[in-house]
Amino acid sequence: MAGNTFGKKFRVTTWGESHGSAIGVIVDGVPAGMPLSEADVQRELDRRRPGQSILTTPRRERDRVEILSGVFQGKTLGTPISMLVRNIDVDSRPYEAIKTKPRPGHADLAYWLKFGHVDYRGGGRAAARETVGRVAAGAIAKKLLAAHGIEILGHTVEAAGVAIGREVKPEEIRKNVERNPMRCADPKAAGRMKRAVLQASAEGDSTGGMVEVRALNVQPGLGEPVFDKLDAEIAHALMSVGSVKAVQIGAGCRVAQMRGSEANDSFVLRRGKIMTETNNAGGILGGISTGMPIVARIAVKPTPSITKPQRTVDIARMKEVELKLKGRFDPNICPRIVPVAEAMLALVLADHMLRAGKADPNRFK
Amino acid sequence: MAGNTFGKKFRVTTWGESHGSAIGVIVDGVPAGMPLSEADVQRELDRRRPGQSILTTPRRERDRVEILSGVFQGKTLGTPISMLVRNIDVDSRPYEAIKTKPRPGHADLAYWLKFGHVDYRGGGRAAARETVGRVAAGAIAKKLLAAHGIEILGHTVEAAGVAIGREVKPEEIRKNVERNPMRCADPKAAGRMKRAVLQASAEGDSTGGMVEVRALNVQPGLGEPVFDKLDAEIAHALMSVGSVKAVQIGAGCRVAQMRGSEANDSFVLRRGKIMTETNNAGGILGGISTGMPIVARIAVKPTPSITKPQRTVDIARMKEVELKLKGRFDPNICPRIVPVAEAMLALVLADHMLRAGKADPNRFK
Amino acid sequence: MAGNTFGKKFRVTTWGESHGSAIGVIVDGVPAGMPLSEADVQRELDRRRPGQSILTTPRRERDRVEILSGVFQGKTLGTPISMLVRNIDVDSRPYEAIKTKPRPGHADLAYWLKFGHVDYRGGGRAAARETVGRVAAGAIAKKLLAAHGIEILGHTVEAAGVAIGREVKPEEIRKNVERNPMRCADPKAAGRMKRAVLQASAEGDSTGGMVEVRALNVQPGLGEPVFDKLDAEIAHALMSVGSVKAVQIGAGCRVAQMRGSEANDSFVLRRGKIMTETNNAGGILGGISTGMPIVARIAVKPTPSITKPQRTVDIARMKEVELKLKGRFDPNICPRIVPVAEAMLALVLADHMLRAGKADPNRFK
Amino acid sequence: MAGNTFGKKFRVTTWGESHGSAIGVIVDGVPAGMPLSEADVQRELDRRRPGQSILTTPRRERDRVEILSGVFQGKTLGTPISMLVRNIDVDSRPYEAIKTKPRPGHADLAYWLKFGHVDYRGGGRAAARETVGRVAAGAIAKKLLAAHGIEILGHTVEAAGVAIGREVKPEEIRKNVERNPMRCADPKAAGRMKRAVLQASAEGDSTGGMVEVRALNVQPGLGEPVFDKLDAEIAHALMSVGSVKAVQIGAGCRVAQMRGSEANDSFVLRRGKIMTETNNAGGILGGISTGMPIVARIAVKPTPSITKPQRTVDIARMKEVELKLKGRFDPNICPRIVPVAEAMLALVLADHMLRAGKADPNRFK
Repeated sequence: MAGNTFGKKFRVTTWGESHGSAIGVIVDGVPAGMPLSEADVQRELDRRRPGQSILTTPRRERDRVEILSGVFQGKTLGTPISMLVRNIDVDSRPYEAIKTKPRPGHADLAYWLKFGHVDYRGGGRAAARETVGRVAAGAIAKKLLAAHGIEILGHTVEAAGVAIGREVKPEEIRKNVERNPMRCADPKAAGRMKRAVLQASAEGDSTGGMVEVRALNVQPGLGEPVFDKLDAEIAHALMSVGSVKAVQIGAGCRVAQMRGSEANDSFVLRRGKIMTETNNAGGILGGISTGMPIVARIAVKPTPSITKPQRTVDIARMKEVELKLKGRFDPNICPRIVPVAEAMLALVLADHMLRAGKADPNRFK
Repeated sequence: MAGNTFGKKFRVTTWGESHGSAIGVIVDGVPAGMPLSEADVQRELDRRRPGQSILTTPRRERDRVEILSGVFQGKTLGTPISMLVRNIDVDSRPYEAIKTKPRPGHADLAYWLKFGHVDYRGGGRAAARETVGRVAAGAIAKKLLAAHGIEILGHTVEAAGVAIGREVKPEEIRKNVERNPMRCADPKAAGRMKRAVLQASAEGDSTGGMVEVRALNVQPGLGEPVFDKLDAEIAHALMSVGSVKAVQIGAGCRVAQMRGSEANDSFVLRRGKIMTETNNAGGILGGISTGMPIVARIAVKPTPSITKPQRTVDIARMKEVELKLKGRFDPNICPRIVPVAEAMLALVLADHMLRAGKADPNRFK
Repeated sequence: MAGNTFGKKFRVTTWGESHGSAIGVIVDGVPAGMPLSEADVQRELDRRRPGQSILTTPRRERDRVEILSGVFQGKTLGTPISMLVRNIDVDSRPYEAIKTKPRPGHADLAYWLKFGHVDYRGGGRAAARETVGRVAAGAIAKKLLAAHGIEILGHTVEAAGVAIGREVKPEEIRKNVERNPMRCADPKAAGRMKRAVLQASAEGDSTGGMVEVRALNVQPGLGEPVFDKLDAEIAHALMSVGSVKAVQIGAGCRVAQMRGSEANDSFVLRRGKIMTETNNAGGILGGISTGMPIVARIAVKPTPSITKPQRTVDIARMKEVELKLKGRFDPNICPRIVPVAEAMLALVLADHMLRAGKADPNRFK
Repeated sequence: MAGNTFGKKFRVTTWGESHGSAIGVIVDGVPAGMPLSEADVQRELDRRRPGQSILTTPRRERDRVEILSGVFQGKTLGTPISMLVRNIDVDSRPYEAIKTKPRPGHADLAYWLKFGHVDYRGGGRAAARETVGRVAAGAIAKKLLAAHGIEILGHTVEAAGVAIGREVKPEEIRKNVERNPMRCADPKAAGRMKRAVLQASAEGDSTGGMVEVRALNVQPGLGEPVFDKLDAEIAHALMSVGSVKAVQIGAGCRVAQMRGSEANDSFVLRRGKIMTETNNAGGILGGISTGMPIVARIAVKPTPSITKPQRTVDIARMKEVELKLKGRFDPNICPRIVPVAEAMLALVLADHMLRAGKADPNRFK
């Protein structure tokens, strides 16, 4: 019970089931006086919602957000911001037939074992739809960060076995990510990814990938030793997103094969400022931001919903059965995870800005 | 400030600087009536301490633990358990010379930027020595878990570029891990690892690796959606350990290249119980334990302290300088991270046992 | 920032401004499988809402609650329960005229000093209307407690200088409290209270009083030493209600004049059970429930809104001015605080039931 | 479990049993760079310890505090400050004889019902000795507050039926409180109190009283609506002290008999600053500090340990028995509660200073 809140000072609580009447989020701790409108939030929700391209599910969630509290005359009040999105265009009938047949790779069985009583429609609370609340909250966090010059960038670096294979520049991400359905910063790699994704999809299967998020212009000193280290909380935040099975900071898994002389980022002076020559640390040392770009990568598993037949157990009859899902599913979830991962990184940073007393209300005046 | 506590019901707060007078931990939330002695804790501390082999630093921390509260007549009281280890055999002189020269790969600069006033001796609060408290707390968590049949196993799966390269059985871990200085479950791989580690060390350099931890016989239903998912909290716990740059759950990064039909673990019946045929999920679906073994892997960076010359900036003079560290350092930190990673996994599971109301005080009677 | 959540396992987060579009609450941590309907909540909201009698403000808040999540097929899911009440019949015009003139006894000035940007309409976030969320959450807590045989009773023991002056029996509370507008357990005292309240009201003034809440049939062992003592958390909960200026547990302030031999409740055996002869402790020793009735009393200040002229400072001109409020206000807030105080006591107890692992999900089957 | 921590940013965790080997506290969240020495803490501990006068128990707790971490070169590091006091001069023998006979007014029975396994020696965890940790932490909080000009004053306003009966000035408190054993700001009243206390003591009985704490020069804007209101957290903090049965803020219980026109504090201009003419609110409106003095009063029950015979139940034999305690006990606990109550008020304010971002690290430079 009671795990639906994230953050200590910038506190986000999401609620709602996929096929319930609505879904939403409360954001508590936003400083008073920050300009905020529904359009700020809607923009991010539109990046998350399905039906954007051939690569996403066609469910027509219009996902109109309503801000119910915490904002007055266009500015935040310092009181909780409650946001609501009604669930519409919901068809729960397909789930009736399979309600005793947990879908492999989904949370169905785990929820049933934990809670006993479960909303089986569309994945209920465990559905990707829960991320509506995260993205809405993330939009507010991004606004707070932007007021302090911090930029969050996300992009797909690998999908369906096609990796971008090189370091991309921030400009490439800003320019290209919203121009292709893979949200890849390299247009050519994006084309290859798309073909590989559609190929697997045509075979009734899904594919995984890798998403990177960065935070630029982060001030030094964010993160609290020793358990609330910035990287630990980023790992927590990103791993809490469904389908994520690994989180890497900076050089990530590659450090296992490095030597110290290679992995250590040398300190150098650049225009009178201490920086590091390389950024294997991903902008974090001892759990504290150094001022270098924060870089994290997540491994995203293939969408568990596939049309290929699968084996499962009917829990009503305790018998092994074949499961054949009908419908259209995201063939690859990476493009839609990009805004969610950005949101999660933004939430962690906004929280630590507030915790470190570095969010300046005068920025909003 | 205030990030030195981990867990919600099994709450661990560590304190202490590397060269201060002592280091310690408070564990709050342990149920009353559990048998506990200093020997239970000492055993785990002895696995963590340096000086165990040619592969660890020679600092002679005897690390005698003293339990100061929370235990009476050999059993826990349900009140906070305070544990203390005095710091002895501490030589702070080498740190005087470099106190304005932050060591690359260490937290020196980040702490200085964050706190202004820093204990520069031996890494201060950011030193690996802080894990004494984690391991002591983990020993209590392990005892609680063991009373419920849960076993924690850790081992080095890769070091200095030598990977074990196969799945090992629990029996191999239990049998071999304490028999070689690498804490590797495969004796032959251990030998190759050791040679590669010593080779780099002879060159004044250090090496990284990969450590795996598992939890066996975990009951289903642990983990709280949606932010306190079991995998999210494991990622948080493991990433909060110094030198860890990536956390993988189950198949981890490999899911990026998988297809859904391969990544999804089929549900099957085995002796009347629902299990999965494979365990790519690492025992967790939707953030909740399924009853399958929980498996996590961490990428460990090379020890940042190396004797090779490095570049840094003298913050007193704001000039680039060369840094040459003297002394003997762990050439590879993996073997000593094994008990720490085990402790962190144990802490997460003990916390979630209590949160789910599944720790049964009657077990101790 | 971020103080809008109460409880550790039964977690309540309220949101909303008095004249915003809606007001609401999220309750996280309710065990799965508990029967719950909107009617359960509506019943308590109807006790709280204004317009019930000549003694309450005539604002026609219909206060229809909508449960948006966390309940499926009439039973809780173990996921967050989001509840919403739209604000209607709101007239914000009177507040325009006084928006730079903080009302004495209200939070206007304090909010302005703290937040800079304030919703001045109807008290904004500081309005009594915020208790809609508390009462809605309390209705769920009461249902959880009732399933375990625990009953919450509240009543007015003093108003406008008229004190009930004797200990009343639970039966009197159950029978009489909803039968008179003072929510007083003694019908005769209720009549005297009402006359005194109306007398002051006729003079453009308001009156205070004292409200008592009790919890019957509470199991022993609730409350966590040393800071989360049951009485400490009850004090916190009750003092967080607007207008409350004192909280007494058991004999409360009277202990100051007692001797130890009188204040100590002797332990006796009654039908094989250990009880206390008196209950000066109010059912709590060392911060832990003993099984005796839990009793708390709160001092309620007179409604700060009065029609008599008052002195204040115009913060726009920094000049002392006279303030004359127009409208009709609750002449005495005690009757409407009764359900709020009941709700707060229920929240604390439900939280501690869950924390102590004493809420049994099988109760709901 | 797990209730031994207080505060969100200035986090205090106490540990230790009365007759265990030591008792102590960790303070996490203290900003870096604040001057701090053991003498700062010792001064407050000396005010708390027994054996100060004829009015306190003769146990010779020397209570030497040792700071084990978090301070380096006389200044705080921003890391946890661990403080330890060894328990010496402990005679546990008297408790053997009564270990199955819970003392009325003490926590013995409640702990036994909750934990099953209890340290019965000297009250164990429930003993007043636990306040050593509170006072030590409070000393640090006071130092932080003093650096911002905030002063904490405590004094006994009533004891053994003798009330001081008038408002005392801060100067009287500063001047007189440490000059008489009652810690009363009025020397004459102190004399009468002392006689009444000794009279009851001579009869084998104990007496209660009332203690007031004030905070002067508190900046406006501390406290977080709606559950973390400053008064709610003060009530929590003070009620968590053993023997406290009521907490009043400002006019406290007297508001029950007031009219609104009397209870409302008028806003006035004094030297260009908005103040209130009276201070019935006790410096807090809507849960937020206004800048006026914060005033709280607590009702302290008579020391439960008395030498007069009492009735209890032997829980081993489940029989009613007579209990006759031997030894010398505090005849009135008010004087020793004064420093504890001051500490608790200081902890709340320090926490809210940090939460509001109003503790300025530059103050320490």
